[in-house]
Amino acid sequence: MAKVTPKIQAGFMELLPAEQILFNKYKNIIKETFEEYGFAPQDTPTIENADVLFAQIGEDTKKEIYRFKKGDDDLGLRFDLTVPLARYVAMYSNSLTFPFRRYQIGKAYRGERPQKGRFREFYQADIDIVGNGSLSLVNDAEIAAVVNKIFEKLELGDFVIKISNRKILGGFLEEMNSGNKIDEILRVIDKLEKVGKETGKQMLIDLGLKNTEADKILEFVSIGGDSKKVFETLDKKGIKNELFNSGVKELLEVTEMANKFGVPEKNLQIDLSIARGLSYYTGTVYETILLNDRVKGSVCGGGRYDNLAENFSSQSFPGVGVSIGLTRLFSQLLESGMIKAKTATPAKVLVVPMVANSNYALEVAGKLRVMGVATELYTEDDKFKKKLVYANKIGVPFVAIIGEDEESKKKVALKNMATGEQVLIGVDGVAKLIL
Amino acid sequence: MAKVTPKIQAGFMELLPAEQILFNKYKNIIKETFEEYGFAPQDTPTIENADVLFAQIGEDTKKEIYRFKKGDDDLGLRFDLTVPLARYVAMYSNSLTFPFRRYQIGKAYRGERPQKGRFREFYQADIDIVGNGSLSLVNDAEIAAVVNKIFEKLELGDFVIKISNRKILGGFLEEMNSGNKIDEILRVIDKLEKVGKETGKQMLIDLGLKNTEADKILEFVSIGGDSKKVFETLDKKGIKNELFNSGVKELLEVTEMANKFGVPEKNLQIDLSIARGLSYYTGTVYETILLNDRVKGSVCGGGRYDNLAENFSSQSFPGVGVSIGLTRLFSQLLESGMIKAKTATPAKVLVVPMVANSNYALEVAGKLRVMGVATELYTEDDKFKKKLVYANKIGVPFVAIIGEDEESKKKVALKNMATGEQVLIGVDGVAKLIL
Repeated sequence: MAKVTPKIQAGFMELLPAEQILFNKYKNIIKETFEEYGFAPQDTPTIENADVLFAQIGEDTKKEIYRFKKGDDDLGLRFDLTVPLARYVAMYSNSLTFPFRRYQIGKAYRGERPQKGRFREFYQADIDIVGNGSLSLVNDAEIAAVVNKIFEKLELGDFVIKISNRKILGGFLEEMNSGNKIDEILRVIDKLEKVGKETGKQMLIDLGLKNTEADKILEFVSIGGDSKKVFETLDKKGIKNELFNSGVKELLEVTEMANKFGVPEKNLQIDLSIARGLSYYTGTVYETILLNDRVKGSVCGGGRYDNLAENFSSQSFPGVGVSIGLTRLFSQLLESGMIKAKTATPAKVLVVPMVANSNYALEVAGKLRVMGVATELYTEDDKFKKKLVYANKIGVPFVAIIGEDEESKKKVALKNMATGEQVLIGVDGVAKLIL
Repeated sequence: MAKVTPKIQAGFMELLPAEQILFNKYKNIIKETFEEYGFAPQDTPTIENADVLFAQIGEDTKKEIYRFKKGDDDLGLRFDLTVPLARYVAMYSNSLTFPFRRYQIGKAYRGERPQKGRFREFYQADIDIVGNGSLSLVNDAEIAAVVNKIFEKLELGDFVIKISNRKILGGFLEEMNSGNKIDEILRVIDKLEKVGKETGKQMLIDLGLKNTEADKILEFVSIGGDSKKVFETLDKKGIKNELFNSGVKELLEVTEMANKFGVPEKNLQIDLSIARGLSYYTGTVYETILLNDRVKGSVCGGGRYDNLAENFSSQSFPGVGVSIGLTRLFSQLLESGMIKAKTATPAKVLVVPMVANSNYALEVAGKLRVMGVATELYTEDDKFKKKLVYANKIGVPFVAIIGEDEESKKKVALKNMATGEQVLIGVDGVAKLIL
């Protein structure tokens, strides 16, 4: 029979068991933290109607959509988890309780040209708190607290949540009379870290700004220091613009409340250059970066928006949220060697009978599982050496060897695969030792 | 602005938070049991190359595939989790350790006409043990043990794992000289429960079988009683056919080993009418049914196959596995009222400050989370009554009320929402009481 070549598309992350177990560990920490903060799970269809996906989308992203027909239906795969959330909130607003706190960890799809570090299928881990008509600022602080907790638990070294408020930069630019170019200017500021100050300045001048104006903007977004110092510097500028001052006031409140939620000052840093390209952010904006040179760019971004579902509903649903690009983060961690997969099995112990499948071996496996010990039974009638090679390959931490002697004594020879130590022990003892 | 109607396709299960929490509970029990038995997680792309999906597929299923082009690539959404497993095993056989034990819980897609109880997007929860060249029969018993453990833990009442071996029926039909019609006859037997004996008999006669032959087959597949009795009845038939006798021997071994793994006799029942339409099963076959009239049909089916990846590799990969149709099962449980969603939040306690967002309230929420109590903070500046209405709506079990008095005493008024009882208690006490 002619064989079909077994392969998958470029840009799709598919993992071997050990890497998959590691990926799931991180995914699970994120999920547990979301739930610890009272976010409810959401699981929307991967397929959305095309008109929903295309309700508000840039031309570049539009090209990337996996779009197809089934019968008369014009469909596509979701390209993020925000559009499905907006559609969901508009669709079920009468059944939901607001503020609606939800998380979704799921795959999204963008059929872009494959390149290193870019994925066509990727996990996003999103949380949002959505109000009906209004939503208090304490939610902005809580989102920062969740992000802080997650990156503490992930143990990927030091990190910083960069925070700002779009109104500050917006008001500053308004005051400068750069009124109708604000979106373009914000886009340049967003790229500053990538392109550098020189190029950034030229890009601003290309937008029609004067040399002095460009300098003023660049100086403004580089205001640094701890929160106290930033607020002092901003205060000294004496800017009277209403939008600006409301942004400063909000940012002050959010950072103070975040600290009260337990976010350490060193993990939360005001950065006025955080603009987040998407024009739908209207207040608080966040970016999280890891403080090492192995993982580049923002690993978690988001912010406050005035109206989540404006394309689907005439009601107003303000909200605040963030998204973790899990697939991209994991792939960078793995490729840079920052994390390493160790074991290819969730089992804590492998039961290895000298004689294949003795009744006693089956009983031992059954009992260990009842006691809550994740257990695998070596099922094949192979040489003993091959069985131990298998144990080493899957990286199981313990092996419970069962020979005639062990069987007659109703014990097992428990071998710690890391130390090589071996003890004769009863089944109860195995559970105690391993759990 | 013109609004897009927020809706999704028929045949896609989308849940409100309380139902989603319940769904996730069941999904999680299945996942945990798979891991307890040492199955490693797998997460293949939702999109496969069309030639992989179409390597071996019936015409009916082919029409149901969501198939599309992206650039020059001919693609489709997976319609089950077995084809991706076969492709994966062939693709990574050099990196995998055999026997390869994996589970995958993921969505599959079939764009069939929507009808009650049928889904176009549905979760399957699959386990398989795949050998390289050979795989011992103890694995067939272990699969039954996993299924038994899962349905015990799901607590959906009594259930039966019906088990047989395709060789028994195959050998019996061979012996009867129904040689070249075996697949057609098996398909009729598969439908017997649906169509009834009368119609089934007519269908057999329509295939060209004699009246007496049809009767003989119907009598054979209705052999009943406990395992001991079934084996006695089969033995008395004195059939010399080799395939038949090897099937009987395998079935005997598998049922005996399953019992040793801890599967109670009442949960494992030999049923010679289990044929499982798919011709790729070659030995053990299983179907699981719930013993109540609310959930119809098989909730978990599978079996042993000689060669998983024959379309992708010239190596032989025999295996055994089962699949749980989770979306269909859950939808039947929910619609029949057998299960009921209770709470729309993973939080165990809602912190309700009388004055919105007092520092103390933020601290309490933060401390409870550090102690591992899933906690939500009521963030809006609403009337107290509205806050309690919210607590009732989301179904949170406890509310921690914080007024002036509680704040000055550094305590909270903890209200049990089920009993209405309220106690003044410190934050540590809350954690002790709830965890």
